[in-house]
Amino acid sequence: MEIQRTKIVDIFDPALVGKKVCVKGWVRTRRGNKHVQFVALNDGSTINNIQIVIDLEKFGDEELKPITTGASLHVEGLLVESQGKGQNVEIQAESIEIYGTADPAEYPLQKKGHTFEFLREKAHLRMRTNTFGAVMRIRHHLAFAIHKYFNDHGFFYLNTPLITESDAEGAGDMFQVTTLDLDNLPKTDDGKVDYSQDFFGKHTSLTVSGQLEGELGATALGAIYTFGPTFRAEQSNTPRHLAEFWMIEPEIAFLQLDGLMALEEDFIKYCVKYALDHCADDLAFLNKMIDNSLIERLEGVLKEDFVHLPYTEGVKILEEAQQKGHKFEFPVSWGTDLASEHERYLVEEHFKKPVIMINYPKDIKAFYMKQNDDGKTMQGTDVLFPQIGEIIGGSVREENYDKLMAEINRRHMGTKSLWWYLETRKFGTVPHAGFGLGFERLVLFVTGMQNIRDVIPFPRTPNNAEF
Amino acid sequence: MEIQRTKIVDIFDPALVGKKVCVKGWVRTRRGNKHVQFVALNDGSTINNIQIVIDLEKFGDEELKPITTGASLHVEGLLVESQGKGQNVEIQAESIEIYGTADPAEYPLQKKGHTFEFLREKAHLRMRTNTFGAVMRIRHHLAFAIHKYFNDHGFFYLNTPLITESDAEGAGDMFQVTTLDLDNLPKTDDGKVDYSQDFFGKHTSLTVSGQLEGELGATALGAIYTFGPTFRAEQSNTPRHLAEFWMIEPEIAFLQLDGLMALEEDFIKYCVKYALDHCADDLAFLNKMIDNSLIERLEGVLKEDFVHLPYTEGVKILEEAQQKGHKFEFPVSWGTDLASEHERYLVEEHFKKPVIMINYPKDIKAFYMKQNDDGKTMQGTDVLFPQIGEIIGGSVREENYDKLMAEINRRHMGTKSLWWYLETRKFGTVPHAGFGLGFERLVLFVTGMQNIRDVIPFPRTPNNAEF
Repeated sequence: MEIQRTKIVDIFDPALVGKKVCVKGWVRTRRGNKHVQFVALNDGSTINNIQIVIDLEKFGDEELKPITTGASLHVEGLLVESQGKGQNVEIQAESIEIYGTADPAEYPLQKKGHTFEFLREKAHLRMRTNTFGAVMRIRHHLAFAIHKYFNDHGFFYLNTPLITESDAEGAGDMFQVTTLDLDNLPKTDDGKVDYSQDFFGKHTSLTVSGQLEGELGATALGAIYTFGPTFRAEQSNTPRHLAEFWMIEPEIAFLQLDGLMALEEDFIKYCVKYALDHCADDLAFLNKMIDNSLIERLEGVLKEDFVHLPYTEGVKILEEAQQKGHKFEFPVSWGTDLASEHERYLVEEHFKKPVIMINYPKDIKAFYMKQNDDGKTMQGTDVLFPQIGEIIGGSVREENYDKLMAEINRRHMGTKSLWWYLETRKFGTVPHAGFGLGFERLVLFVTGMQNIRDVIPFPRTPNNAEF
Repeated sequence: MEIQRTKIVDIFDPALVGKKVCVKGWVRTRRGNKHVQFVALNDGSTINNIQIVIDLEKFGDEELKPITTGASLHVEGLLVESQGKGQNVEIQAESIEIYGTADPAEYPLQKKGHTFEFLREKAHLRMRTNTFGAVMRIRHHLAFAIHKYFNDHGFFYLNTPLITESDAEGAGDMFQVTTLDLDNLPKTDDGKVDYSQDFFGKHTSLTVSGQLEGELGATALGAIYTFGPTFRAEQSNTPRHLAEFWMIEPEIAFLQLDGLMALEEDFIKYCVKYALDHCADDLAFLNKMIDNSLIERLEGVLKEDFVHLPYTEGVKILEEAQQKGHKFEFPVSWGTDLASEHERYLVEEHFKKPVIMINYPKDIKAFYMKQNDDGKTMQGTDVLFPQIGEIIGGSVREENYDKLMAEINRRHMGTKSLWWYLETRKFGTVPHAGFGLGFERLVLFVTGMQNIRDVIPFPRTPNNAEF
């Protein structure tokens, strides 16, 4: 009878030494001599491989021939303490079943290193490599940390819609969603596309943010969070942009500025600590192979109290730096929408710790933010991090109907598609606040990876929707 | 100084009796007499209201006038044991701040009951009602249960893409995603739409399933699950169909038929038990107001071992029922794709417990299912539930490249957009299996609601993408 499979993540348990075990996985490498062969087997449950020791007196050469990098095996044998360096246990193979081969002439992931560019073309296989396995496991643990944090704090997960008639923040380029036949578009009498024949009877797009619907949830359930895909049809071919990415957007009734900043800091520290606690092996690998200061940077975030920095003060610091000769690509003065270089100067050079910047000029922030009494600033709260710059964008929301309408009118925005949003301010309006975190930004920060295409399984970017 | 707010879910703690407390929330009802007024306040954290007792000697009539259904309040006062029936504690108001009013002439959620149809038009407010608050809280707890189950069992959460070039199972009507200007479509020389100018340089759609990409994850990380939105552009205006819904799709390497059935049963029982354990108040409410047999049905699922029923045997049972005079709308014989009425007959009338039906005729199942040696059936494993019919659709996957290609050719399917999927069978193929669960189906089952539009915050259906 087949013995129960043990996942490789569980095989390094000293209690199993001396027992007969069964493992299944893919061959990472094979080496050896005429007497004995060593196969490093991995099943994706951990970055660590288990070494399979094959005594050539027990197995024929022909039988072993298909055991090349990428082949899949079912191995049974005795778990013993290892003679070699680098692993504490190994399996003396007693039986080997080959599930599938991987022709070395065709299989692209041979043991030599590959560039990340090459691996993006092989996104269907790259999760089998050490780096992408580590990144995807960390991504999982971060996602779970987020759900756990909010669940433990009494937030309700709210699935806001993906297909929408509205443009959440006038955020710009959106993808259109349609069932009309583009080769045979129905037209109205005046020659325009007849959207009454489209699936939803209207022009619809993919959402750029769930915040506005999130506010509906918060003003009913008290505290909600979204965690779902979000879309931007920007023609940005950069290491920081994806057309399809995942956002987390908590929204909380009865929360004001101080509470919001405290939540942002507590939440992000929780995520980073959770990764340090649950992804030690994968982080150690990335720290060694990708970025030697990774773990130090993660631990650094946990140690420091975040600076609370009014925008106006931040700009003063940047202006002083300019006067002292620091060169920014984009010069700064009050009213400037800060760029990543400015944010990083404040975080990495000036304060040397994370910064929550607050009270932004209203012309660089969204219409829904709470207006300060100075008539010039709004209660935005962006969290700025080393390496990444802005990792969280949050704000207190303007809950006063008249003030909100005045701002909407000042911006010449339409309100027709916002009637339901505005009713939250008409019927039992309450102070409330929330923030948005781009999930891939967080994964970038925690993994030390440099390109956002390498922290999502199948990136969508201009001219690329493969897999 | 303002005292710390207590969420209403936490206010019923006997240790708080005799203490000064602060609560914030929305007025559900107000009643009383010339001497004392009673306000039922709810903040969405629980279905239970806290009663605020207002002594009219302390508060003026004018001051209290705006306290109508839907208004939002900040109340401080003494928590005392209640004199009245139906609640164990109440708050003797000492101060009341009104955050926002809700004009009774305009606010649609007055205390009288509303039809679910009416509330669908008010989806931006309906989460403030007892029923939808309960449903959305249960939805949250079920989502968390799913993440927790898979995390605890070593599965990794995999975010498969939403925008895709491929049609996962030939599942039919898909939404097209485009940035082309429909009023001014670029055309190629032969008069066709020029998709080289579209955002992705190709025709793209919204995914109908993440399974195929999920298999890429499973054959790298061992065990993964997806939990994300999925889209079907079906013109189905029924209580069972949404154009946008959430799916859970676990996929597991090295898993075969018995293991898959065990996983399906263990998983769904875990979810139901989690809801019973964590949503007692909300379920009690729904059991009372929506469906008196709800809790009994949920507990029933936990008690029984699921029946493992080969399709061929199931059809025999249905044919015998027909012969004995049971009228089905659609007659059954071997090869029939069973309808909900057949599934429910087996579950509710014949076995009186959940059924996992296996080994379906290959012509009614998808190309990727593992082929049995009989040449006629495939290793599908659908879980059939009372009330709902099919709640899970799963299968062992065909891991043999040649058999898979033969089936693809038999169906005259193209393979051009599937090259990456097929490579999983070329390079280290392994036995593997998985299933899909429509999240809203689960929420329907657990809440006892009848219409799938009432278990998702903002349903998308033909001609409706509002909010």
